[in-house]
Amino acid sequence: MSIALIIPDRKLDDLQQRLQQALPTTPIEIWPDIAKPEHVTFAVVWKQPTGSVASLPNLKALQSFGAGVDGILSDASLPRLPLARIVDPALTEAMLSYLAGIEAYYRLRLDLFQQQQQQALWRPKSPRRLSTLCVLGLGELGTATALHFKAQGYQVNGWSRRPQQLAGVHCFAGTEQLAAAVGSADLLICLLPLTAQTENLLNADFFAMLKPGAILINVARGAIVDEQALLAALDSGQLAAACLDVFRQEPLVAEHAFWRHPAIMITPHISAVTKVETVVAQIAENYQRSCQGQSLVNEVDLQQGY
Amino acid sequence: MSIALIIPDRKLDDLQQRLQQALPTTPIEIWPDIAKPEHVTFAVVWKQPTGSVASLPNLKALQSFGAGVDGILSDASLPRLPLARIVDPALTEAMLSYLAGIEAYYRLRLDLFQQQQQQALWRPKSPRRLSTLCVLGLGELGTATALHFKAQGYQVNGWSRRPQQLAGVHCFAGTEQLAAAVGSADLLICLLPLTAQTENLLNADFFAMLKPGAILINVARGAIVDEQALLAALDSGQLAAACLDVFRQEPLVAEHAFWRHPAIMITPHISAVTKVETVVAQIAENYQRSCQGQSLVNEVDLQQGY
Ligand SMILES: NC(=O)c1ccc[n+]([C@@H]2O[C@H](COP(=O)([O-])OP(=O)(O)OC[C@H]3O[C@@H](n4cnc5c(N)ncnc54)[C@H](OP(=O)(O)O)[C@@H]3O)[C@@H](O)[C@H]2O)c1
Ligand SMILES: NC(=O)c1ccc[n+]([C@@H]2O[C@H](COP(=O)([O-])OP(=O)(O)OC[C@H]3O[C@@H](n4cnc5c(N)ncnc54)[C@H](OP(=O)(O)O)[C@@H]3O)[C@@H](O)[C@H]2O)c1
Repeated sequence: MSIALIIPDRKLDDLQQRLQQALPTTPIEIWPDIAKPEHVTFAVVWKQPTGSVASLPNLKALQSFGAGVDGILSDASLPRLPLARIVDPALTEAMLSYLAGIEAYYRLRLDLFQQQQQQALWRPKSPRRLSTLCVLGLGELGTATALHFKAQGYQVNGWSRRPQQLAGVHCFAGTEQLAAAVGSADLLICLLPLTAQTENLLNADFFAMLKPGAILINVARGAIVDEQALLAALDSGQLAAACLDVFRQEPLVAEHAFWRHPAIMITPHISAVTKVETVVAQIAENYQRSCQGQSLVNEVDLQQGY
Repeated sequence: MSIALIIPDRKLDDLQQRLQQALPTTPIEIWPDIAKPEHVTFAVVWKQPTGSVASLPNLKALQSFGAGVDGILSDASLPRLPLARIVDPALTEAMLSYLAGIEAYYRLRLDLFQQQQQQALWRPKSPRRLSTLCVLGLGELGTATALHFKAQGYQVNGWSRRPQQLAGVHCFAGTEQLAAAVGSADLLICLLPLTAQTENLLNADFFAMLKPGAILINVARGAIVDEQALLAALDSGQLAAACLDVFRQEPLVAEHAFWRHPAIMITPHISAVTKVETVVAQIAENYQRSCQGQSLVNEVDLQQGY
């Protein structure tokens, strides 16, 4: 019984050491240096090379190194095993702090004033009147986000796959209710997982549902957004601005039109980064659970893809 | 007994109408159209032309149209009369909201990411570790600001002319304690009034007292800052960035170096704007008090200049 860390292109000494402290008697190896593949029963996975997980014949369970699992599930050769993801209150805190800062940025019209600064233009303007906000996805992050902005005085709509109830939040569910959820929003925050259902969900049809002049913040996954449709919505003014923290391809290539669009603010996937402490504790717990044949903590629904 | 509004270059119909509703029997005239100057006993003043107030012989009291009175007192011909300023809880709220947004902007390193965006550079970086904040001026706005950031988890130093006590805030007073107040601050917020004592207070000596890499937010008055010293401190890295909402000359002229400095963010004096409702109520109250020979609400200390 051993653990494999299949996380290419990242320094893993710290993670390996801390995990070893939590599980002193368990061999922990870093892929591709696995002495005996048949001994590995548990793998921690992130951006794994296709086939790497499948090369370990006696795996019982998988642990994502992050909150999202779309990258892991995109590997067609992945064996169908229990898969857990990280859920981290500190990550939720970081996300709320990011979103609060971006909301303030647009409310105070810092985007406008920075454009004016480039032209040495002095044009005072009162804050944007943002009153309705829609959160797409009401999971760990989306729920906390909806409640945060509700407490700030926003009228908040939330949208999820299955019907939900959330104190003070207008909840909508399913494709039929998407237009109702987003139609009145001044600010949209995307916190959906990337799945077959959500890929390119924010397309031309979606942008046409919005209140003209709405602002989009995408902190979920880049591929949820149809890039050409986003650019068109910004150019037509249907969207006033977009803040993007995630992209179809990361790092965003230097030639990409997003870098240069005046209505797009780019942050390099920094909105919320998982804490190593949390990761170590959850990996150790799930490893022990898998050894004992128990269900994992924060297990993903493989059918739904999140 | 009548009121004169001495506020050039501004539409005053709304103010006049609302004030007339509050004081139905009092004549309210807009300078320079004053039928009988000797009848005017009360003047509402903002950026008044030199000599305009002095031309009204029977004034009993003056009311500033805003929170600051430096502009009013700069008129050497101003008669020495009781002068009140506006104190407005909604203005304090607006200021806190502005400062919270600017703090988040720097904490999230949006300044850095926007510079990187201009170069199509993808360089993730975790938030700035801002832990100590210093508020210069602990009046209406400074006190609320100190308590706000204290509640956000900051270690907060405050600086005022006279010694003060504020729960959880390290209070410093007077020129001798300025270095101690500012020396450890990651973030400095200037909320001093402009007086003979504070003019050019933020000069080369002041910037030399700071922790290298500190960030300055000036929402008080432009003339408190020595402009060349500020540019030098930014160029040397002693200051990492400055957010300026107020300027020695407003509008800031198009040729000014501030517009083009990469470490300066400019907003056109929008951080906190007084609400007409508050102004009308306070003018009406102070007019009635002056008629009855009572002291004014929010009266300024003419000796101190604020
Ligand atoms: N930018 C970053 O740094 C960062 C950090 C962490 C996470 N993320 C991203 O944020 C995503 C959300 O995280 P989370 O922890 O909040 O996820 P989560 O707890 O799994 O919640 C997902 C939410 O999306 C809803 N949803 C899923 N598919 C849907 C569909 N087809 N239609 C409508 N709603 C749908 C779910 O609906 P139900 O409630 O009905 O299941 C649920 O409310 C992650 O998947 C990850 O990609 C980004
Ligand atoms: N940007 C905007 O939109 C905007 C809006 C409103 C106001 N303002 C500016 O903000 C300024 C502050 O407003 P406020 O209502 O908070 O003023 P305030 O209530 O009069 O408070 C002034 C504070 O500054 C301190 N102070 C004055 N002279 C000092 C000196 N020489 N050394 C040290 N401390 C000194 C005072 O000390 P003591 O406590 O010892 O008296 C007091 O704590 C206004 O004067 C105005 O210029 C700007």
